[in-house]
Amino acid sequence: MTLDYVIRKAKEEDFVYIYEMIRVMAAYERMENQVKMTLEKLIKDGFGDHPLYHALVAESSDGAIIGYSIFNYAYSPRLGRQVYIEDIMVLKEFRREGIGKEFIKMANQIALSEGCVECKLSCLKWNIPAMSLYKKLGFRNETETKNLLFFRFDLSEMTKITEI
Amino acid sequence: MTLDYVIRKAKEEDFVYIYEMIRVMAAYERMENQVKMTLEKLIKDGFGDHPLYHALVAESSDGAIIGYSIFNYAYSPRLGRQVYIEDIMVLKEFRREGIGKEFIKMANQIALSEGCVECKLSCLKWNIPAMSLYKKLGFRNETETKNLLFFRFDLSEMTKITEI
Repeated sequence: MTLDYVIRKAKEEDFVYIYEMIRVMAAYERMENQVKMTLEKLIKDGFGDHPLYHALVAESSDGAIIGYSIFNYAYSPRLGRQVYIEDIMVLKEFRREGIGKEFIKMANQIALSEGCVECKLSCLKWNIPAMSLYKKLGFRNETETKNLLFFRFDLSEMTKITEI
Repeated sequence: MTLDYVIRKAKEEDFVYIYEMIRVMAAYERMENQVKMTLEKLIKDGFGDHPLYHALVAESSDGAIIGYSIFNYAYSPRLGRQVYIEDIMVLKEFRREGIGKEFIKMANQIALSEGCVECKLSCLKWNIPAMSLYKKLGFRNETETKNLLFFRFDLSEMTKITEI
């Protein structure tokens, strides 16, 4: 039997479940201690006149939130507006049902309506199920094809450089 | 003698120089044929009520535009708002003067005032001068430390997935 669910934009009342899944995914990626977010801040940042990100959820036919995805917009001066999919998370018992693909589909539908011309995401190398989905859908691994590397600078380094 | 210049937010009249430098940088990265942007669209996207990106320029004391940087905002549900520096470009004859560092400094100053807690950027592995600057400033190479890979999906694939 196929799982019955819908993908839709997240509402405020979904965030208690989204927040829990963010913590579960961080643990899966062995970065649990990197979650510095509170539920209140996550909600505040995602709503209002200038939301800082966009969230989708997967809701099963019995009303349970079984996955979420978060994306936002970026820009390439060579190409134009881009969508960047930050997170895709499906609860363990609901995986292999195509929900991840449906999240990517809906994020891309919204992004196309917003004028985007490219979709980007990143993935940890050992996350084989995610990698094989992205490859199956036609994503190009630019770390492999172009030797593109990814750098990060945290708040203490941000503060330090502004004081030089 | 030290080069005399200022870093400031880009104005509309700077874009004719920025656009030329975007093409030069694409050529340097061997991706000249990937520039699908027009000067008009770049200006339209960067101004107005909802600019799609933010641009800085380096202006020498004689009024020449000798470099540019483009950044925008992202969001980590674990951490909060992030700044993503998309491009940093300094004309060849003005390199090794610290202008790249000043672009990163100003982007981070603006980002901190906008509530960002992390700065991200990406870099091609063979771009040794850029890599050594980022490492010197304290950026962590997460492709190396976490095996973080970068994937991309172009407009035709975006359209295709929405039609499945």
